[in-house]
Amino acid sequence: MNFRGRDVVSIREFSRQEIERVLHVARDMLPVAERRKRSNMLDGYVLSTFFYEPSTRTRLSFQSAICRLGGRYIGFADPAVTSMKKGETLADTVKMAEAYSDAMVLRHPHEGAARLAAEFCSKPVINAGDGAGQHPTQTMLDLFTIKEELGSIDGKTVAMVGDLKYGRTVHSLSYALAMFGAELIFVSPRELQMPKDIVESLSEQGAKLKSTTRLDEAVKEADAVYVTRIQKERFPDPNEYQKVAGIYQINAALLKDAPEDLIVMHPLPRVTEISPEVDPTKHALYFKQAFYGVPVRMALLALVLGEVE
Amino acid sequence: MNFRGRDVVSIREFSRQEIERVLHVARDMLPVAERRKRSNMLDGYVLSTFFYEPSTRTRLSFQSAICRLGGRYIGFADPAVTSMKKGETLADTVKMAEAYSDAMVLRHPHEGAARLAAEFCSKPVINAGDGAGQHPTQTMLDLFTIKEELGSIDGKTVAMVGDLKYGRTVHSLSYALAMFGAELIFVSPRELQMPKDIVESLSEQGAKLKSTTRLDEAVKEADAVYVTRIQKERFPDPNEYQKVAGIYQINAALLKDAPEDLIVMHPLPRVTEISPEVDPTKHALYFKQAFYGVPVRMALLALVLGEVE
Amino acid sequence: MNFRGRDVVSIREFSRQEIERVLHVARDMLPVAERRKRSNMLDGYVLSTFFYEPSTRTRLSFQSAICRLGGRYIGFADPAVTSMKKGETLADTVKMAEAYSDAMVLRHPHEGAARLAAEFCSKPVINAGDGAGQHPTQTMLDLFTIKEELGSIDGKTVAMVGDLKYGRTVHSLSYALAMFGAELIFVSPRELQMPKDIVESLSEQGAKLKSTTRLDEAVKEADAVYVTRIQKERFPDPNEYQKVAGIYQINAALLKDAPEDLIVMHPLPRVTEISPEVDPTKHALYFKQAFYGVPVRMALLALVLGEVE
Repeated sequence: MNFRGRDVVSIREFSRQEIERVLHVARDMLPVAERRKRSNMLDGYVLSTFFYEPSTRTRLSFQSAICRLGGRYIGFADPAVTSMKKGETLADTVKMAEAYSDAMVLRHPHEGAARLAAEFCSKPVINAGDGAGQHPTQTMLDLFTIKEELGSIDGKTVAMVGDLKYGRTVHSLSYALAMFGAELIFVSPRELQMPKDIVESLSEQGAKLKSTTRLDEAVKEADAVYVTRIQKERFPDPNEYQKVAGIYQINAALLKDAPEDLIVMHPLPRVTEISPEVDPTKHALYFKQAFYGVPVRMALLALVLGEVE
Repeated sequence: MNFRGRDVVSIREFSRQEIERVLHVARDMLPVAERRKRSNMLDGYVLSTFFYEPSTRTRLSFQSAICRLGGRYIGFADPAVTSMKKGETLADTVKMAEAYSDAMVLRHPHEGAARLAAEFCSKPVINAGDGAGQHPTQTMLDLFTIKEELGSIDGKTVAMVGDLKYGRTVHSLSYALAMFGAELIFVSPRELQMPKDIVESLSEQGAKLKSTTRLDEAVKEADAVYVTRIQKERFPDPNEYQKVAGIYQINAALLKDAPEDLIVMHPLPRVTEISPEVDPTKHALYFKQAFYGVPVRMALLALVLGEVE
Repeated sequence: MNFRGRDVVSIREFSRQEIERVLHVARDMLPVAERRKRSNMLDGYVLSTFFYEPSTRTRLSFQSAICRLGGRYIGFADPAVTSMKKGETLADTVKMAEAYSDAMVLRHPHEGAARLAAEFCSKPVINAGDGAGQHPTQTMLDLFTIKEELGSIDGKTVAMVGDLKYGRTVHSLSYALAMFGAELIFVSPRELQMPKDIVESLSEQGAKLKSTTRLDEAVKEADAVYVTRIQKERFPDPNEYQKVAGIYQINAALLKDAPEDLIVMHPLPRVTEISPEVDPTKHALYFKQAFYGVPVRMALLALVLGEVE
């Protein structure tokens, strides 16, 4: 198992053992991420953060990660300031990251962009989301959150709630959770159910799965609820959307009968799918989950740059 | 008096003694701000600079301040690159700064935004201007400028010139100058006089105040002239604006009869309210005043982060 | 020869000996630019990168340069986030760089902007392109590329291809190459020939020059081909543009008969003027040329900041 020089394009390219290695290193990074401990492990390193679409949380957590380890970053948060509008190809832009830095974090609206970047860049490329494609570091921080908060992933029951049809986050996470031996409950309106091919593939993988439209029932059985946004645009009828958004909202009433240790997760940003009244409760894990993005990304950077074995 | 972990939302929350502490630390920072001396006091620290509206001078001076002390920054200068447009609340965005950094500098168009941010963020929040609200670090650097250049604030006469009705800068500064025992001359067209309630409140505070429409006379009595922009939009009649803008402009002719040591200050950016012909004179203090933003912000960061007592 | 505190506005202000000094220091910087060696030469320094128009390659290479030497940067990549729209002059904005940092890199759409900035800023100003004006660090990295790759500049033959009429890059570079004793072949369509006054001035300088419309012939004689973009807007007739763009494209067929050691250079970004099929060949030097921007800019920063003699 060697991470040095490796690209992080899809979670599918990582074995369970490899992901466990990332999570293990991430735990070592925790005190540094909280500044309880100092590190200069990545002193002298420069990270490129090339964001072709806005994603504040992902961008800032990567930048925090390199800073916490003593490194520096360059890049852009907005394609308007790039040479894209002069007609430059992504392949040529990628060569900049190769020339000016030691690794590249790429966010791009088109599926497959990270794969293409990795082909053209001799330095490690980390996919920070490519359209409807992959967002592997999100999956890794989701796994880290469950492991840190529930003690293990194996044997835990995770309810995935919301738009399971289009949400890339839940597809990648379902795959990874199944690999780690978690049980899954898919909770969604009929219009937004987990695609059949994914369900089948998970079943073949040996995953324990359940599907339901009843959030209230799922909540009673789950160790973790993973909530995703339901986008208005998915519904031709706005009234239909309103109804669904109301039914699949996490709020105090719903959590009244939930297990005491239930954790509520969300990749953020949220809009109305989790009521702010949940924030002060012990169930609310989504802000801590966002923080966990820092140690996980620190771990990945240290690994692909070869500063941790 | 303890600054560690403290929010800096309004100048009103700081006693004279506390502000004097900030100014004292700022003086210690001067050689580091000018790079005559090296410091790594904030090594390993990450500062969030979240700017929801452009403010180059404030943003860059905070970033210079953290850099000069060996720290790093993350953030945005433009809300277009944030999740705001996905409908995320300010409260949720603030939790990012909490998760990814050690302190947050916030600029926001809405009054009260910094207060709200401070409520949601467990790390120190520094208000870098919130609409018609407060901009406390501007007031502190203004005080620092007067103290450094005139030797003291107590007993000095400061003429405030321009839009005294709407200008938040001059309201906060008037309050602070009165607290420090300065005498104030309010110089403005009748349409833009200092609001009555502020004048009354300052009088009750024991401040020595004078009001006039005559800039030429005020200049003869003052130790410092603090100039602010008069915005065209305040005048329904453009001719009226032109007349006023001409009368309240600082230029060479006006300064011919001014005391030799008179200093001219301005929060910048300026447009026409100070003629460029003033720039090479010894009266022109506004560029140095802008520089003083660096040591003052270095002091505040070091204090709220607990690296200076 | 002293670089400390010096502005870098135009290549014309540098003697051959001075440019050779820059290239020599740049070579020393190579292992640091590649992170094979660590340096903290510019620890504690802050660089302002003020970009009034997008130029990703130039901006990121300057930022990489200061980072590789242990320094930090502040600035903007987009004038929309500045006070420009409040009506602030460039002269006043420049005073910010002076107050908050140790040197300023300026990109501006108007010719002469860097000269003006240098007048108002007491710290070194480096011109990163001002409209149709100068871009001296591009010329320096072009020279460095030729010297590193061909062993010398003196006596080498460089074919300049494309828009020689409007391209500032090729004007500055022609002047510098002539000063270094290179022979020049100007290759362009008749509509875009090198301006007569430049040709005459080069001849007076003692330069060996040739002009042709035949790219295929020039390629056979050259040690280096320097390609620039031909802009569609130069041609009233789109068909005429298409024809010209086709004739002056570097592709595999053209390079079939080229000397084995021929190098192909381009300031980038490119659009269609070099076919991607050239990229994997040993002739393709343009990506390495972009990388060379880092050591050259490191050298310039270290020199004007006085950390290298």
